[in-house]
Amino acid sequence: MHPGALRDKVQHLIDHKTKPKGALGDLESLALQVALVQQTTAPTMQNCALIIFIADHGITEERVSAFPQAVTRQMAGNFLRGGAAANVFAKTNHVQVQLVDAGMVDELEAPGLLQKRIGPGTRNFLKGPAMSPAQCRQALSEGQALGEAAPGEALCLGEMGIGNTSSATLLAHKILHLPLAQLVGPGTGLDARGIQHKMTVLGRAAQRTPAQLDAETALVEYGGFEIAMMAGAMLGAAANAKVILVDGFIATAAAAAAVALDPGVRAHLIFSHCSAEGGHQVVLEALQASALLNLNLCLGEGTGALLAWPLVRNAVAMLNDMASFADAGVDGPGPES
Amino acid sequence: MHPGALRDKVQHLIDHKTKPKGALGDLESLALQVALVQQTTAPTMQNCALIIFIADHGITEERVSAFPQAVTRQMAGNFLRGGAAANVFAKTNHVQVQLVDAGMVDELEAPGLLQKRIGPGTRNFLKGPAMSPAQCRQALSEGQALGEAAPGEALCLGEMGIGNTSSATLLAHKILHLPLAQLVGPGTGLDARGIQHKMTVLGRAAQRTPAQLDAETALVEYGGFEIAMMAGAMLGAAANAKVILVDGFIATAAAAAAVALDPGVRAHLIFSHCSAEGGHQVVLEALQASALLNLNLCLGEGTGALLAWPLVRNAVAMLNDMASFADAGVDGPGPES
Repeated sequence: MHPGALRDKVQHLIDHKTKPKGALGDLESLALQVALVQQTTAPTMQNCALIIFIADHGITEERVSAFPQAVTRQMAGNFLRGGAAANVFAKTNHVQVQLVDAGMVDELEAPGLLQKRIGPGTRNFLKGPAMSPAQCRQALSEGQALGEAAPGEALCLGEMGIGNTSSATLLAHKILHLPLAQLVGPGTGLDARGIQHKMTVLGRAAQRTPAQLDAETALVEYGGFEIAMMAGAMLGAAANAKVILVDGFIATAAAAAAVALDPGVRAHLIFSHCSAEGGHQVVLEALQASALLNLNLCLGEGTGALLAWPLVRNAVAMLNDMASFADAGVDGPGPES
Repeated sequence: MHPGALRDKVQHLIDHKTKPKGALGDLESLALQVALVQQTTAPTMQNCALIIFIADHGITEERVSAFPQAVTRQMAGNFLRGGAAANVFAKTNHVQVQLVDAGMVDELEAPGLLQKRIGPGTRNFLKGPAMSPAQCRQALSEGQALGEAAPGEALCLGEMGIGNTSSATLLAHKILHLPLAQLVGPGTGLDARGIQHKMTVLGRAAQRTPAQLDAETALVEYGGFEIAMMAGAMLGAAANAKVILVDGFIATAAAAAAVALDPGVRAHLIFSHCSAEGGHQVVLEALQASALLNLNLCLGEGTGALLAWPLVRNAVAMLNDMASFADAGVDGPGPES
């Protein structure tokens, strides 16, 4: 069917459900989006997976995070034991979790942790590129394969990596050409002095390269392995007609990279929530996106995506299972006074 | 335990989960609220019920709604067949639905429709009180019994009744002393001329009585049977230590009445979403409430409450199942630079 014809057909179905036109707000747009991604008037939405990409960041040397680098590895252990917020929300919402070591400093052997190590953490991007072009291509390609292979109609993407709001900030700055000062925030909880220091470090790091970079160069210069892999996973999931639940600030920076690499990915993205990290709203606007949830989250791990997943299921159920005015013998609006 | 001591204890547990302090935003406040309602550091949150109260409104004679009055009864049939949005969301989210005839114009005999008819619709409140004081007390008391008896730890309350945004508008105006012009909106979809007409009708109806009324008098003068019964259900659910998921504009007007009748109810209320009906935000502010979801819904039936229910389950799971820094051997934030 012609894309416009399918869009009109689905919109007509939604408009004739037993409710005033538009009364289900964002759920209606969500149902339409899923129908267009699946190219059908009767999409399915039963299963969702979460992939959490974990990596370390050389920039932590510059003390840009409130937490020490060791926390990345400790949190990997916490994920493996099921004790993190993402585990708890995934269990509550029946989402399967896949943990991926995208490049922690030290190798961690554990059943349940998929080894896709690109390197022992990135290099300090204040001093030079975070990774080599070959590492970047490898991360994108491994991510793409994981995104394609993930089970279910929807994919949540999460991350863990102390220092990665710094990486995401520079990616958004260089790919979307957004002012650095609007993007720098507290991350996991810096105080005002910490934010000022982070701003100084990131400003100096930004000066190493031209004002705007293509997505791949930006990832090489400032990327995290987990962010590059997440961008790759978006390309893979989109190629397999999945919808992608984008989490917070860091996942949205990955989305900016993915969309720059392939604009076709954009139609697959559901922006799950707007983070308390101020820069997130700025990046969402640049992507002409509005987020479903606004719950003042700023944790990452895919937690916001997991909380938005039930909304996607409900939206699709509305399209498939709600009666139309004609089915139900319900009158439409009368002539107004 | 002293209430303040329990609050401190739960907050301490939340603050020591493996996440930066406050990083789960509104989910943290939600978990604390449930713990305080259940008076425990380990609340349960497994089951949720939805009661939909259905009634007719004499004020529809004045053409204040875009839909004809007959739609109330037709939608009751749609609920009974499982075709309405509330049915679909309830099924998707595993919520049990109870349908209650609080007073439709014509009796509808159907298994699955609980008969609690207070009368054959309210009287036209432009001309005089909508109901008698005895009818109001009966509606509150029947609602209270239903709220007490509902299964589960959480109760969603929904409504159906063509004309009931008009009733809710006057209740909010008289109980909370809010300016009428800020409360009048399109309801199910009036155009600008329709809203102007509704404003004129409601303005004249408001002039029949003093500027501010106590909750019971306001319900007698302007209430819907379904709104009074819903307020009663809130009293009953609160008495049984349930949390109450308040739906949109009409349910929030019922909440204003319930809180005026018993301020202790307030602690049990979770305001699920902010409706696209502009007056809703005004009423929420008057109740010092902020809503969890902002999805541009304006349907009623309990749809917004149903969509918020998974958030409550996730919040409680976070409190019960997430590891603490000590459990997980994860370092807290370091000394900042």
